[in-house]
Amino acid sequence: MARIGIIGSEGAMGHALAHVVAASGHELAGGIDRGGDPAGLADASDVLIDFSVPQALDANLHAAIGAGIPIVIGTTGLDTSHHDAIDNAARVVAVLQTGNTSLGVTLLAHLVREAAARLGPDWDIEILEMHHRRKVDAPSGTALLLGEAAAQGRGVDLAEQSERGRDGHTGARQEGAVGFASLRGGTVAGEHSVILAGEEERLTLSHSAENRSIFARGAVRAAEWMLAREPGRYTMEEVLGLQ
Amino acid sequence: MARIGIIGSEGAMGHALAHVVAASGHELAGGIDRGGDPAGLADASDVLIDFSVPQALDANLHAAIGAGIPIVIGTTGLDTSHHDAIDNAARVVAVLQTGNTSLGVTLLAHLVREAAARLGPDWDIEILEMHHRRKVDAPSGTALLLGEAAAQGRGVDLAEQSERGRDGHTGARQEGAVGFASLRGGTVAGEHSVILAGEEERLTLSHSAENRSIFARGAVRAAEWMLAREPGRYTMEEVLGLQ
Amino acid sequence: MARIGIIGSEGAMGHALAHVVAASGHELAGGIDRGGDPAGLADASDVLIDFSVPQALDANLHAAIGAGIPIVIGTTGLDTSHHDAIDNAARVVAVLQTGNTSLGVTLLAHLVREAAARLGPDWDIEILEMHHRRKVDAPSGTALLLGEAAAQGRGVDLAEQSERGRDGHTGARQEGAVGFASLRGGTVAGEHSVILAGEEERLTLSHSAENRSIFARGAVRAAEWMLAREPGRYTMEEVLGLQ
Amino acid sequence: MARIGIIGSEGAMGHALAHVVAASGHELAGGIDRGGDPAGLADASDVLIDFSVPQALDANLHAAIGAGIPIVIGTTGLDTSHHDAIDNAARVVAVLQTGNTSLGVTLLAHLVREAAARLGPDWDIEILEMHHRRKVDAPSGTALLLGEAAAQGRGVDLAEQSERGRDGHTGARQEGAVGFASLRGGTVAGEHSVILAGEEERLTLSHSAENRSIFARGAVRAAEWMLAREPGRYTMEEVLGLQ
Repeated sequence: MARIGIIGSEGAMGHALAHVVAASGHELAGGIDRGGDPAGLADASDVLIDFSVPQALDANLHAAIGAGIPIVIGTTGLDTSHHDAIDNAARVVAVLQTGNTSLGVTLLAHLVREAAARLGPDWDIEILEMHHRRKVDAPSGTALLLGEAAAQGRGVDLAEQSERGRDGHTGARQEGAVGFASLRGGTVAGEHSVILAGEEERLTLSHSAENRSIFARGAVRAAEWMLAREPGRYTMEEVLGLQ
Repeated sequence: MARIGIIGSEGAMGHALAHVVAASGHELAGGIDRGGDPAGLADASDVLIDFSVPQALDANLHAAIGAGIPIVIGTTGLDTSHHDAIDNAARVVAVLQTGNTSLGVTLLAHLVREAAARLGPDWDIEILEMHHRRKVDAPSGTALLLGEAAAQGRGVDLAEQSERGRDGHTGARQEGAVGFASLRGGTVAGEHSVILAGEEERLTLSHSAENRSIFARGAVRAAEWMLAREPGRYTMEEVLGLQ
Repeated sequence: MARIGIIGSEGAMGHALAHVVAASGHELAGGIDRGGDPAGLADASDVLIDFSVPQALDANLHAAIGAGIPIVIGTTGLDTSHHDAIDNAARVVAVLQTGNTSLGVTLLAHLVREAAARLGPDWDIEILEMHHRRKVDAPSGTALLLGEAAAQGRGVDLAEQSERGRDGHTGARQEGAVGFASLRGGTVAGEHSVILAGEEERLTLSHSAENRSIFARGAVRAAEWMLAREPGRYTMEEVLGLQ
Repeated sequence: MARIGIIGSEGAMGHALAHVVAASGHELAGGIDRGGDPAGLADASDVLIDFSVPQALDANLHAAIGAGIPIVIGTTGLDTSHHDAIDNAARVVAVLQTGNTSLGVTLLAHLVREAAARLGPDWDIEILEMHHRRKVDAPSGTALLLGEAAAQGRGVDLAEQSERGRDGHTGARQEGAVGFASLRGGTVAGEHSVILAGEEERLTLSHSAENRSIFARGAVRAAEWMLAREPGRYTMEEVLGLQ
């Protein structure tokens, strides 16, 4: 049994996490949101789970370092400077950062990387996602994570080889590109498909989330796994034993 | 048995049409392409099928009028002036113009109009299409035809209520909008889905074409039906008995 | 605001109904389960919703008649004698019985009937459903409801024209048959697809439920609609204005 | 350039193979069907492709051995004695036997084995396939091949852990079982989905064939790869570099 501290406790993910921690047999060490003190929380915890905002990342990393405990980061919208800060913190404590804590999506990314590596550039890769009507950005972070896995498998640079937001006279598809398309509507928790379209045949690798609790369960599973880790930067694929 | 003349006989649809006419028991009166004489073709035909280019439309309509025979128009990319020309011709001969001659898509559009009319504006409507890697425009003409059916059912103006090419910070979905997304890859002949996403439930109405010959068969079926028509403008829904 | 009485209040649907009634602004008149007294409940209610067992149906109908109030019946597994009892009760009070109270499924059944009526017998009809791993019967009641709609549209007798549980050497598909296939796994709330497969094209009409609350919401909406009805037997299609 | 001999040349796959060989730059050494002499064909060929019947297998293997050339076997319906004969022949020549020569399906089987190995027994595995209305057996050979891959990944015996042809009162799903469901209709060339359904999330891995030519292309690619092989028994996964 571990004491788990939640950063971003007032958000939708924070509520889901509190529920899962309670059901898991672990102890909820506490939760903070905007303006809360991460150092105090870290002192009372064995591991932190952070689903807050990029601006809070530095303080959260310092709190983990100060208390000498691992931290799981599910915050999205991180840029290069945030990743540098994570790398620095990972010299002192164990840090896991991911765009999606679901075990299903983590396995999907692994399968996509494998498929993209095995199939030649004559197989076009498209990524489709659907989310509820209130989502404000497109493509989803998970769609980009899957696109990154496809690009890695194929050995190309996603930033240079993406086709996004097709509309109007687009011209023919570029060979080797990864395409993205986004659907929005209703209360859909999250659906992602990676389509590998070849000459007269197609592979489609999909994930569907029924609700948000799978992300909370994956984060708690990751937190458990992190308890015994040496300092370093870890991934969800390692939690699932995929690397 | 009827004599069927094909305009645009050298295109992919022209070849498919010649094949279907031969298999149907009808007689292929002949075919013309760029630079061919539609008036001569019309004189030898009982009905024309036109899958050519917008620029040829005027001459093709005049040929049908001159010979006093019906014409089925599957040419895409028509603008308001083309539609005015079709309306004028329809006072003298029978004219059927459509964005998709497949019977399945025609029925799908009918079902979409019905579903959109029955469900309130809290059901979001999204249209997804996938086509082969060589297609140069997005969304497909058929996706727009389906969007038009949805907008009619809901009583809104599609031009003012579309969300296309979502990418980046899009903001939340607009109530009442019809969303479009396009996938491109491989050799896909054409797939369309209309998603009606409500509170915790979803209806999806889809059509999948295995190859291009269904469009040729639908055009020939429309040509047969047109043989007995009075002057006027007709639709594929009427051919299928849906109106 | 109406007083709504729930029969079968301890089942999963009973709990979902109590939650929806509370959120709807109506009053929960009370709930009974095995051994409860429906007459007492009916006296305190303006309308009853029954998600219990076939054996309780007679007493529930008598309670509605005694109190002179409408009743919505979502109980499954009814046989001919139950339907006769419903018909008799419907001479005195308003009764709505349905295999699925979801508005989406009701509309889907309507669209399936329409599509089956429009397409010839060379379009094969297949019905696929997926439910959670604990479901003990196959096909689902909703799959059978959709099969019935298809059979009505096509003018055939479902009992004589079904293909179920294909396994081993089945022989070629019978013309005009309606096929059924069932998937079981995980926690899937309920997914149904009706596939109309023709010569080189396919229409697929699907419904997906994210969770059980849509069935409760549909039942409450039906109960509201029933308050103003004359005696008679009603359907979910009438609630949605589809007939 | 190789000389390729086709056994089963009059079947649908035989015709597709002849077309693909012609387009590939290889030479069609000839083809035989019922009653033809495989030894004579083998003498004129560098490699054989066999899509015939189980009864012809012995003679075909002997022909390959006599001529000292590799053989690709896509014949379905083989039993244990046939597999023994293949093992014996593989001591002398290179033999590749497979239930599906498509590169996409081969990769899919590989991904299914991997996914099944990584996910625990609380993820239910279901296999869905759809084929044209004339197919006489269910589930398809490819569905069984995918089920075998899932069972291998999970370390169970497929024969003891299958749920097929669900109909009527089936009871709850057995933990660890692999379920199968079959749809039949229209002209569908072949679609397969492997669904891994967990607690509130689902992975779906699918393959869709637009037509039969992909199987012919995969067989010719396998034949090319076999030209340089030592005696032994090979798999499509090796052709694709997956093992």
